[in-house]
Amino acid sequence: MTVSREIRLKSRPVGVPTADNFELATVELPAPGAGEIQVRNSWMTVDPYMRGRMNDVKSYSPPFALGEAMQGGAVGEVIASNDPSFAVGDLVQSFFGWREAFNAPAGAVQKLDTFGLPPQTFLGVAGMPGMTAWVGLLKIAALKDGDIVFVSGAAGAVGSVVVQIAKLKGHTVIGSCGGADKVAFLKSIGCDEVIDYKAEKDLTAALGRVAPKGIDVYFENVGGEHMDAALACARPGGRFALCGMISQYNATGEMYGIKNLIQAVGKSLKLEGFIVSNHFQHLPEFLQDMSGWTKDGKLKWTETVDVGIENAPGAFLKLFKGENTGKMLVKLS
Amino acid sequence: MTVSREIRLKSRPVGVPTADNFELATVELPAPGAGEIQVRNSWMTVDPYMRGRMNDVKSYSPPFALGEAMQGGAVGEVIASNDPSFAVGDLVQSFFGWREAFNAPAGAVQKLDTFGLPPQTFLGVAGMPGMTAWVGLLKIAALKDGDIVFVSGAAGAVGSVVVQIAKLKGHTVIGSCGGADKVAFLKSIGCDEVIDYKAEKDLTAALGRVAPKGIDVYFENVGGEHMDAALACARPGGRFALCGMISQYNATGEMYGIKNLIQAVGKSLKLEGFIVSNHFQHLPEFLQDMSGWTKDGKLKWTETVDVGIENAPGAFLKLFKGENTGKMLVKLS
Repeated sequence: MTVSREIRLKSRPVGVPTADNFELATVELPAPGAGEIQVRNSWMTVDPYMRGRMNDVKSYSPPFALGEAMQGGAVGEVIASNDPSFAVGDLVQSFFGWREAFNAPAGAVQKLDTFGLPPQTFLGVAGMPGMTAWVGLLKIAALKDGDIVFVSGAAGAVGSVVVQIAKLKGHTVIGSCGGADKVAFLKSIGCDEVIDYKAEKDLTAALGRVAPKGIDVYFENVGGEHMDAALACARPGGRFALCGMISQYNATGEMYGIKNLIQAVGKSLKLEGFIVSNHFQHLPEFLQDMSGWTKDGKLKWTETVDVGIENAPGAFLKLFKGENTGKMLVKLS
Repeated sequence: MTVSREIRLKSRPVGVPTADNFELATVELPAPGAGEIQVRNSWMTVDPYMRGRMNDVKSYSPPFALGEAMQGGAVGEVIASNDPSFAVGDLVQSFFGWREAFNAPAGAVQKLDTFGLPPQTFLGVAGMPGMTAWVGLLKIAALKDGDIVFVSGAAGAVGSVVVQIAKLKGHTVIGSCGGADKVAFLKSIGCDEVIDYKAEKDLTAALGRVAPKGIDVYFENVGGEHMDAALACARPGGRFALCGMISQYNATGEMYGIKNLIQAVGKSLKLEGFIVSNHFQHLPEFLQDMSGWTKDGKLKWTETVDVGIENAPGAFLKLFKGENTGKMLVKLS
């Protein structure tokens, strides 16, 4: 019998989530049934998109159920197997995060080939966030020679990969983030210009100052005033990859109203929202690029790590306070 | 010596233009010089995009100069020629609107092959507005089988062509317009559902009511609340062709703020602004389609006609009061 602790959604957050919305529960796992395996998670991820799943609304991903363990990416090790395709000790990746251990049908779990990278990078730079950056920049915004690139939320898990891919392809890159530590981090990964949005009264003026020629590509993670600034500073033919708008996820009243969308007409701008899971056909290409870049030292990653399943809700909440630099992770074992 | 009257921009409008912003002037045209021709305009067009050229701001089209005749599409007849490529009586198209007659280098004027259509249709259904509809719907929104199409400003020069192209290609089409006469007009050209935005308190609710399955394509002519409604009702994978936002052209304070752009992320929507002049490579294909459709009686046009150069400013102002159905034109001779 394996004991596992898990985080359940206790109540649906209204506005910014609080610790009270979550509860820690302990379950006992039986030995895995026929065709099942038992996995102990070593790492789990917390990501901004999970906020949407805490609402009871129809979206591309169904809402979390109240009173049940939440879901999300995790890597771990097989600790018992009742299926011939897995052996004890196999490293695996799954969507059974927010818990220390679980039983699952063998088909619901993937063996993880790490290409020599640390396993938790498959929750970050080599996983969903990294692929989101790669797809958004190269497939949605269709980065091309000479583009000046602006990335909001640039110090986050996705943004910091966007910055580095654009830099290693030779582009001028402007990043925005909140706070001096993140500014220093973005400079350290090669960002040409950094806007500390918390230190600016007028984001459009700030972007105009650091990008006097304008921008061609905007990778949108933040929304609100950032979107207006990007529209105002975009050059004709600009392409916007809309990955997320974290500033709006906890809005309870009216959303921020975008004033400058009209500029998309005269400047022939293209704005495209995307969900990385609709682009998994590019996974082999992404993994080839990413393993090459990381092996050559061209792409670095930074992690903010909290330890223990009991701290997973707190780690999730840090995302909305901007308390993470790079990938926010929870180490479980 | 030919006498011509012309409309000059007297002062730059702030907000909604008024008659005081324009002045009527009389000029005497000498005989055309070597390589020049003299043209008497029979029709000129007024279009919403001209409002932008009345502001002194950088855009895709330079501002009109104060104290000089404005410019715009016109069709007319050669009345004197000092160039071997044109003969008196030739029907021509030019950008020398807002005047009764003009001299111009032969290379600045195009002979007009009407394909049997009335010449003024080349300022409307077979001209810039028609091609704007065609490009926006077929090339930008990339209309495909099964798409449900929503068009704002549907009773206007561009919108009424969008409605008809979408209908003749077999689509369900929802149009919005202001007033009962326009509703009747849209029903007469085959629109499946019509929203009278002036009669609705909540445009999103109205669109949801007439498009319970949602929309796949939005052809944007109006902006503001229309854009929020389209974003709210869009189905995943929706494509928005951003042609114009007439509701915002005369804004003096803050623009309307779009609240629902965040939905572009989760629904993977693509919003693309365009300027028809960037797509003139499709002109032969457009003319072939349009002459075929009009000859077969599949595509009809409606005109609102004012007479006389002195009434051109008033005709222009009608566009912003929604007093035109179909193409707003000024007959000059």
